[in-house]
This record gives sequence, C-alpha cells and structure tokens, in this order.
Amino acid sequence: MRPDRIQILIDALRVLPGVGPKSAQRLAFTLLQNEREGAQTLADAISDALTHLRHCEKCHTLTDQPLCNVCANPKRNDALLCVVQSPMDQLLIEQTMTYNGLYFVLMGKLNPLDGVGPKDIGIDALLKRATDGIVNEVILATHFTNEGELTAHHIAEQLTSRGLQVTRLAKGVPVGSELEQVDLGTLAQAMTGRRGAFS
Amino acid sequence: MRPDRIQILIDALRVLPGVGPKSAQRLAFTLLQNEREGAQTLADAISDALTHLRHCEKCHTLTDQPLCNVCANPKRNDALLCVVQSPMDQLLIEQTMTYNGLYFVLMGKLNPLDGVGPKDIGIDALLKRATDGIVNEVILATHFTNEGELTAHHIAEQLTSRGLQVTRLAKGVPVGSELEQVDLGTLAQAMTGRRGAFS
Ligand SMILES: [Zn+2]
Ligand SMILES: [Zn+2]
Repeated sequence: MRPDRIQILIDALRVLPGVGPKSAQRLAFTLLQNEREGAQTLADAISDALTHLRHCEKCHTLTDQPLCNVCANPKRNDALLCVVQSPMDQLLIEQTMTYNGLYFVLMGKLNPLDGVGPKDIGIDALLKRATDGIVNEVILATHFTNEGELTAHHIAEQLTSRGLQVTRLAKGVPVGSELEQVDLGTLAQAMTGRRGAFS
Repeated sequence: MRPDRIQILIDALRVLPGVGPKSAQRLAFTLLQNEREGAQTLADAISDALTHLRHCEKCHTLTDQPLCNVCANPKRNDALLCVVQSPMDQLLIEQTMTYNGLYFVLMGKLNPLDGVGPKDIGIDALLKRATDGIVNEVILATHFTNEGELTAHHIAEQLTSRGLQVTRLAKGVPVGSELEQVDLGTLAQAMTGRRGAFS
C-alpha cells in the first residue's frame, strides 16, 4: 500500500505525548469520521498558535501579544514576583486564583549534569528584574524535584544577598489525599511545616 | 483574562477522545514549546486529510483517490468480499496480512432501537455488489457485539438465500490470553468451535 493521507495523518498524530501507533489510528479515524468540524478547528488553532505566539517582553511566558494578559493588567501587584519553570506552570498558578502579583517565567530548570546553567534559563534576567526597586517579595514556584529545588536554592541565595524577601510554595500533603498516599519525605515536610489548625 | 490563542488551542484539543481540560493544557504547551515542527506537520496533515479524503467508489472506505489501494490492486482476489463496519476495521484487517480479497465497508451497524436500518448503513449496495456474479464468498467481519451480530445475521440471511457462501470471523480465546481473562460466553464459543490441534 502506498502511504496515503490517512497514513500521513496517523503518523503525524504520534507527535502527541503518549500516543502510540494503535491509538494514533483510532484518533485519525475519529477525527475524519466523527469530528470533522472540530478537527479543522484544531488544525487551524495549532497553525495559528505556532504563527502568532511569542514570549512576553516582561515575564517571558507564551502570549500572542507583546505583553501577556497578566503583565498588561494594571491591577496586578507589581511588588510580588512569582518565579516559575514554564508557561504552563504560570497558567496553573493563575488558575488557582490565589495570586495577584506578576510572574517571571524561566526557560526550564538548572541541570548541571546536562550543562544547563543560570544564564541558559534566564536567571540573569530574573536577577535584573527582581532588583528593579519595585519588587519586594519573590515567590519561588519551581518544581519540588531535585532540579527544581536546586534552581530555587540558587535563586534564593542570589536574591537574599541583595536584600529581597524570598519565599517558597508550601510543601505538604495534597488536598484530598490520604496520608498513606504520600511519601515519607512529604509527610515529614508536612509535620515540620505544620500550622495553626483551621486558622 | 481575554481568551488568547493558547486558550483557543487548549479548547480545540478537547476534540480528541479522552482529552479533558488538564491534559489539553499539557498537550498545548508540549506542542508549542517542544514539538513545534511536529505540531505544524500535524495541523497540515489534519487539514489535508479533511480536504482530500472521500469514500472509495467501490468499497466505500476512506481514501484520497477515486479507488482505494485495495480496490485498485489487480492482484487482489475479487471472488472474496469481506464486510466491515468502518474504514478503521478495514485497515485493521489489512494489517493482519492474512487476507487477499476485497472489502465492502458499511456505514456502521444496524441499530433498530435508534432507527438505523439496512439502507442507512449501505446493506442494499452491499447486496448488489455481492451478487455481481464475481463474488462467491462473503466474509462477515462486523463486531462481535449485539449490534454487530445482528448486522451479520441480517446480511447472512439475505445472501445465503441468494446462493452465496457466507462466512464469519472465528470466535474464540484471544491469542496470548489466559482462560480466566475471557468471559464464559467466549470460552463456550471456543469449545464448540474447537478445531484439530496444531493442524
Ligand atoms: Zn508577561
Ligand atoms: Zn476500495
């Protein structure tokens, strides 16, 4: 069989994480038979996003404007700066609706073994931004993995020596979680970081 | 936040089966940050397939040519006709590489409760095709569900009364399966349909 447009589509769907040959096949036929309108909308949305997205000039998240929605909003508190590892993490924090400050989006995390240093992920630009005289608290929201913690420690060191208040997201037991579902390290952190109950 | 192109893409990704809000978000950022080239290829493949795919004039599967690869192949045995419920099932049987005949692709299965009758899924066209004087065996490969079986029974009735040989895919225990993994109905079918061992 010569490769036809169905096969080309099946192969192209493999770009989606976790989609193997069999589910790519299923997805292709679903799109072509039952979801033609949604499929065209999806194709256009991908093309359009790829063409128009860029990095926000101020916080470096992905946006289709020179300044992202958050940076362009005059009601945000510009004394607070939350540091995240990626545009997706920025969006996740926005969705919690618990934060009214601004962001700085790093391009990933420090990884000395792979030769990824502070400059590679934009920490030099962060230090400049955080010491602009307006920011007074920097909230570190990098991941709670080894590399995320390393990145947070490195930034904290640099910023506290410059006299800024540096905080970190709280560690603990996830909401809705049974204690047996979390690892002992998390449980230990939750114990040492305990707070007044229902305050 | 006004909806931007990222949000439009996240919403559009929901067309994929099994993709909820959270995984749509993850997919969007993966495509935009780490898979830009593959994402554009995917967008083009979807558009291109939607524009060019049609039904094969002979077997009604999806193809980008007037005749699909199978129908256009003069080496296929045109005395054998395999009836399937969908273009995906046709492709699955092709991939087994056990079949050298032609196909007839129904538009689904009979469903009296939903008012889907023989004409709606193309059984009238199938009867015409199967009685062209060239076909001598019709292999029913509809699903082994209630509706697939009903469809197979209906077609078998029509065709045997016209003097054609009608066969059905074998029922039994799946290859690689333990007996305890199949239901008793399947096991009963496998027993009554038993064949000479290793023949
Ligand atoms: Zn911004
Ligand atoms: Zn065909």
